[in-house]
Amino acid sequence: MIKPANGRSRVVIEEIEPRVNSGRHPARRVLGDEVQVRAAIFADGHDQVRARLLYKHSSERRWRFVPLTASVNDAWNGSFTVDRLGMWNYSILGWVDHFTTWLSDLKKRLAAQPAAAAAAGLDASGPLALGGLQVGAQTATGEIPLAFRTGAILLEHAAVRARGADGRKLAKAAANLIALAEENRALYDFPLTQEQVDLAENYPDLSFTTRWDPDLCLWVDRERARFSAWYELFPRSTAKDPGRHGTFADVEAQLPEISAMGFDILYLPPIHPIGRAFRKGKNNSVTAAPDDVGSPWAIGDIEAITAPAHPDDNGGHKSILPQLGTFDDFARLVNATRDQGMEIALDIAFQCSPDHPWVKYHPEWFNIRPDGTIQYAENPPKKYQDIYPLNFESTDWRGLWDELNSVFEFWIKRGVLVFRVDNPHTKAMPFWEWCLGSLRTKYPEAIFLAEAFTRPHPMYWLAKVGFTQSYTYFTWRNTKYELESYLEEITQPPVSDFFRPNFWPNTPDILHKALQDGGRPAFMIRCILAATLTANWGMYGPAFELSENAPAKPAPGKTESEEYLNSEKYEIRQRDRNAPGILVPLVTEVNRIRRENPALQRNDTLRFHPTDNSMFLCYSKSAPGNTLLVILNLDPVHDQSGWTDLDLAALGLTPGETFFVDDLLTGARYIWRDRRNFVVLRPGVQPAHIFSIEKP
Amino acid sequence: MIKPANGRSRVVIEEIEPRVNSGRHPARRVLGDEVQVRAAIFADGHDQVRARLLYKHSSERRWRFVPLTASVNDAWNGSFTVDRLGMWNYSILGWVDHFTTWLSDLKKRLAAQPAAAAAAGLDASGPLALGGLQVGAQTATGEIPLAFRTGAILLEHAAVRARGADGRKLAKAAANLIALAEENRALYDFPLTQEQVDLAENYPDLSFTTRWDPDLCLWVDRERARFSAWYELFPRSTAKDPGRHGTFADVEAQLPEISAMGFDILYLPPIHPIGRAFRKGKNNSVTAAPDDVGSPWAIGDIEAITAPAHPDDNGGHKSILPQLGTFDDFARLVNATRDQGMEIALDIAFQCSPDHPWVKYHPEWFNIRPDGTIQYAENPPKKYQDIYPLNFESTDWRGLWDELNSVFEFWIKRGVLVFRVDNPHTKAMPFWEWCLGSLRTKYPEAIFLAEAFTRPHPMYWLAKVGFTQSYTYFTWRNTKYELESYLEEITQPPVSDFFRPNFWPNTPDILHKALQDGGRPAFMIRCILAATLTANWGMYGPAFELSENAPAKPAPGKTESEEYLNSEKYEIRQRDRNAPGILVPLVTEVNRIRRENPALQRNDTLRFHPTDNSMFLCYSKSAPGNTLLVILNLDPVHDQSGWTDLDLAALGLTPGETFFVDDLLTGARYIWRDRRNFVVLRPGVQPAHIFSIEKP
Repeated sequence: MIKPANGRSRVVIEEIEPRVNSGRHPARRVLGDEVQVRAAIFADGHDQVRARLLYKHSSERRWRFVPLTASVNDAWNGSFTVDRLGMWNYSILGWVDHFTTWLSDLKKRLAAQPAAAAAAGLDASGPLALGGLQVGAQTATGEIPLAFRTGAILLEHAAVRARGADGRKLAKAAANLIALAEENRALYDFPLTQEQVDLAENYPDLSFTTRWDPDLCLWVDRERARFSAWYELFPRSTAKDPGRHGTFADVEAQLPEISAMGFDILYLPPIHPIGRAFRKGKNNSVTAAPDDVGSPWAIGDIEAITAPAHPDDNGGHKSILPQLGTFDDFARLVNATRDQGMEIALDIAFQCSPDHPWVKYHPEWFNIRPDGTIQYAENPPKKYQDIYPLNFESTDWRGLWDELNSVFEFWIKRGVLVFRVDNPHTKAMPFWEWCLGSLRTKYPEAIFLAEAFTRPHPMYWLAKVGFTQSYTYFTWRNTKYELESYLEEITQPPVSDFFRPNFWPNTPDILHKALQDGGRPAFMIRCILAATLTANWGMYGPAFELSENAPAKPAPGKTESEEYLNSEKYEIRQRDRNAPGILVPLVTEVNRIRRENPALQRNDTLRFHPTDNSMFLCYSKSAPGNTLLVILNLDPVHDQSGWTDLDLAALGLTPGETFFVDDLLTGARYIWRDRRNFVVLRPGVQPAHIFSIEKP
Repeated sequence: MIKPANGRSRVVIEEIEPRVNSGRHPARRVLGDEVQVRAAIFADGHDQVRARLLYKHSSERRWRFVPLTASVNDAWNGSFTVDRLGMWNYSILGWVDHFTTWLSDLKKRLAAQPAAAAAAGLDASGPLALGGLQVGAQTATGEIPLAFRTGAILLEHAAVRARGADGRKLAKAAANLIALAEENRALYDFPLTQEQVDLAENYPDLSFTTRWDPDLCLWVDRERARFSAWYELFPRSTAKDPGRHGTFADVEAQLPEISAMGFDILYLPPIHPIGRAFRKGKNNSVTAAPDDVGSPWAIGDIEAITAPAHPDDNGGHKSILPQLGTFDDFARLVNATRDQGMEIALDIAFQCSPDHPWVKYHPEWFNIRPDGTIQYAENPPKKYQDIYPLNFESTDWRGLWDELNSVFEFWIKRGVLVFRVDNPHTKAMPFWEWCLGSLRTKYPEAIFLAEAFTRPHPMYWLAKVGFTQSYTYFTWRNTKYELESYLEEITQPPVSDFFRPNFWPNTPDILHKALQDGGRPAFMIRCILAATLTANWGMYGPAFELSENAPAKPAPGKTESEEYLNSEKYEIRQRDRNAPGILVPLVTEVNRIRRENPALQRNDTLRFHPTDNSMFLCYSKSAPGNTLLVILNLDPVHDQSGWTDLDLAALGLTPGETFFVDDLLTGARYIWRDRRNFVVLRPGVQPAHIFSIEKP
């Protein structure tokens, strides 16, 4: 167990953080973050321990280091700033430091001198020439001179390690210690200059070090990984002319509006040819009418492409639905989006309609039934015959992995760096680890949002193996208790070290009961919660701004449905963006507040504050120089009032202090004092305060 | 990151427990324990996952296995029983099981049949010959026959894996499925027998498994590691004749008394020759009188041995202080102790007096000062010139390690299997990991108690690297809050997976203020707490039974001392074991109750119960068929009364239930009902109830 070489390495290092699954996965940070590293570091006995935090970008050969600092009970801390995208490495080096031990003991010996001299009944000013031993006190047997000689040896060794000018300075300090020792005085002053101490500590004896092994990894994303606002729309619904299939050009025309609302990622459902076999009709009907447009997630139509734009343009994941436009049209949209300060996010759904070219050219990538047919998706007795799932146990799994990986790369080369991945939890986990690992190495600025609406372990595992952000259970967390406990789980380590939540009040698949029942006031509540509880949020519009809340007919045997009535997944839905009560102003305000307040661009400072009304959710977030306090009425029907019980320390306030709270939604300013302050909130009118805390 | 070979292994295994420091150290259990193993196991999608717990004694070549069982949210559990001392290995194997997936789907398909037949407007009894497709229901396209064919393929593969008689049975089941499929009936019954299902599941397809890597370790001690009662005495104080130095024979004469009190380990401070240089006098005086016996921990006197009993008998750690007796006397004591159902524990203190033979023969094992002298122990300005610490950075560290290791082995060969190790936290941690590792491999029944009165990290680390039990902070935990929070920390995982607390109300080094001030009633309280809160306890007697509570004079500059006045560490202390008020009866009762009640022989079932009096500590422990409830008055001065608020579930009771509580200390029986019951406890008379919960 003990390697012979390190039998003398007495330092133990354990409990190093951040560390995800014992170091199996990299922790995540974004560019510019100061990475706080903590560990328990100790040795036997009372000798002084020193430790360094080692770090480097994975592409660098030389390690950089900073000293770690001890706090209480063997806990040590240090930090480094990540100034480059991609993988970083870090580790810790610890050792018993004989110079600092000597220094610490010497200071105690020197401090004890006057007592010693007094105990010996001596004048403290002259040299001593006493024999014998005086226990418990400094004595004339030359204990301090002896300590000086010990120090001289340590300094001489440091001089050898230092060499050059530093070496000469250390050698001189050593010689001076010996000269002082020879004076054999009764009282000594501290014999070294601070420069000499610093110099000696700069050249420590690293003969017997302990190094944390193996090195840990940390992945650094760009800032948008942590702070983003997503807007999802169906391009085919964007035409102004009634009934016409929308195009990329129509989307382009809407960009100024979307940008003005403050979004920075425009997410498009799959843009590929849509299958014809078993195409779903309106409202998920199993029989489609001839003019039904089908679900964009039933990907692939080998017959859709008549004039291939490139060799892989055969109707699958590297093709564009002709009704949307051409590759040139797409390139124009990508550029126009970028010009508006936004980015396009594409939806990557690794599944095939029966008409997908992979079905023809790679049937071995699917499950084949004993009758030779391909197994469609099913959850017996339910069947989804319009969808063929891929078989990750295929004998040609390597070929499959390469092809899937190349889909991402295909679109990255066409200017897309953000992907929303459909149902990643139904594709093999080892595939994602490999695929995202290789993509991120080549394209460290790429962002992958996991639509992992699944159980906690697979959801978190997908984050661990490389997804940048994830959908969450936010949609199903509506009460105060649900929201507080869920947020506390996902915004603190260990979860926050690998998982970045992205809160969506709605998606084309989920119209929650709270929105169905609560209507527009509930949409306002969920908008403010999503946008202020976590730094990443998104919405499926314009269904959201219009507070569309009519649910689909429940499935047979069910009493309710979370699907939309006349779902846009199966038909074109053109909307009136001038409808009364549209929530565009609120969304715009909320996104503006997010951009102007760094406190809302991170999750780690989120703190909940008690109130005396269980319908109030009260929370704060802070960043240097910026502290926000949100108080929200979770009740979409009734006015609610109550008293806060603020955690003043979390707000940077002192007990009894008077302060201003500026409501960033309304511009109103209130004067508050201490923990308890009164609040009234009115659903549909003013469901929340988003206060900035200001000192007079 | 993904090895090519396991790209198709879709199962993920994480969060496996028990696991100490991510598997760096073995977890600990005792012989006969059922080891509960938990992990999160999952795969992509909806396929059925199966998993096995693999385990074996490290000396075995073949792995044994049991199935793991899924509970909620991907948590799986399983267990194995450890029937042999020493190191065990365990791991987990998981895979996506296509047979159980098929089985589960088939059951759903069959269950949906009547609805399908009804939906098709058909008589459910005859064969079907419909074309076309009926979504959402079983149809006549032969979906179930097709499923049967799929099952037949899976069974045929299982038959190939099984071979022999099982193989033939599986092949027959497959053939039967095909025959059934060909009947193409409208309604099918479940086509397999339970025997066929079990058989198929016994021969799973393990082509694409995931195995937890690397294997985990678990160390199994004998039961005394978990449940023991230690009695410490100074042999030199055991003579009946006033003033005479006690001998091993005197100790032997006291064995029946000690055994009658219910102890099973008799722990002796170091029995080696005691140094003469700088010998400490009475009350730790720096000047010893000629007849002062010195501290047993100042080990080594090269001149003490005039007639060596063996080649290494040169006055050090392999010698016996001549005043105590000979090696033959020691052997007699070891045997006599065993005859009384007890064991001897020796104190191993790796430090030397200036007269130790290692100082002469191995000066390189010590720190040498620039003047050529050996560095004594010091904590400037305090000096301990009677003690030379060992230098674990010695150039001959391997020689030093070997010699220290051989000290244990020397005494093990002389019948000692229990060691109390003095100040292990001042010796290098890598040494302990190596030394205890090699000793435990050779002598798995050896027990090592760490006197690790140090900070939490080094204390726990010593347990992790191999100490069997440890002293704790119990002595300094006296209030209800201190006791509850400390016990909750040390009796639950992760700590309880590696750390076994041993509670001592006093030691020769520690007479806590609570005992000094509280006197005999406080001794009673601390005795009951130590003996019932944890399964290992010990006391330094007869100072304890006699409630000796006079502290030493505080050190200069201090206001109090935890040392004993006239400490036995520096002088012979003969006591009157017939003194009035001696606590022998209480100690005897407590040890008897411990032996008779398995609930007190473990720590994992400890639960605290609320009361309305903050001076009451109320806790329960249970074992199969045995539930104890202790209610103790922490106040050594005043009577206290109050109401319990019992956690009935922890006691195996139901709300409103009436039950008996039998006080095992007094024999009294009370009838209690439900959570709230009234208690009065009187210091010095009846400071506690130790109740056995009995159902009428």
